Amino acid sequence: MIKGIYHIAIAVKSIEETMEIYSRAFGFPKVPILTVADQGVKSAMIPVGNNSNIELIEPLDASSGVAKFIEAKGEGIHHVSFETDSVDNELNAVAGKGLALIDKKARKGTTGLIGFIHPKSTKGVLIELAQQ
Amino acid sequence: MIKGIYHIAIAVKSIEETMEIYSRAFGFPKVPILTVADQGVKSAMIPVGNNSNIELIEPLDASSGVAKFIEAKGEGIHHVSFETDSVDNELNAVAGKGLALIDKKARKGTTGLIGFIHPKSTKGVLIELAQQ
Repeated sequence: MIKGIYHIAIAVKSIEETMEIYSRAFGFPKVPILTVADQGVKSAMIPVGNNSNIELIEPLDASSGVAKFIEAKGEGIHHVSFETDSVDNELNAVAGKGLALIDKKARKGTTGLIGFIHPKSTKGVLIELAQQ
Repeated sequence: MIKGIYHIAIAVKSIEETMEIYSRAFGFPKVPILTVADQGVKSAMIPVGNNSNIELIEPLDASSGVAKFIEAKGEGIHHVSFETDSVDNELNAVAGKGLALIDKKARKGTTGLIGFIHPKSTKGVLIELAQQ
């Protein structure tokens, strides 16, 4: 079951610079920047009001998928993350409904388990499923 | 003040087809499709779990900005909408912090007042401010 929108993720060249802009403009809090070496990114999860979050993701090097995204499309919205109580159950369910998976099974993300659905079966939207 | 993420909007060629896919895959409810002639789009606001929404937007004709977006970038995430208690106050505030505005003043949207901030000053993210 999808419980809500956990976050939208924005691919940027500099989390520090972007956090400064969003903090100044909207009053969003500045939060710690984590390095997630196995995904090749730095990440910062910024709460938006009282219902959801914006995740800023910055590539660690040019081989990162996020670096390739920025090179191809420029900085901007990268994916949307739906919160669920079971990533594995949800991946199985959507595969059974014909969606294409990037991850066949849940894997470890920054704050819990995650799994990605391919944008080719969701009208161009890269969807992350996330379980806290 | 930003109260939360009101919705993320996905630009699609067919709301009906997309709503069918998302409803089957995720159990999202099917909702009415509104025609918003002055914005050149059809729109459907789909609740996601208990905290936010996905808006599907479909161009009414090839001259619509959304049609041009799809032609240039393909179907996919078009903008994020932040809920605020005053679009005019928020537009003034972010302009004072150096952000570029598309709308200098609030205008009527499908469910209240809206105003857009230009992606060139937000790291590629088209941001809507929305007031119910």
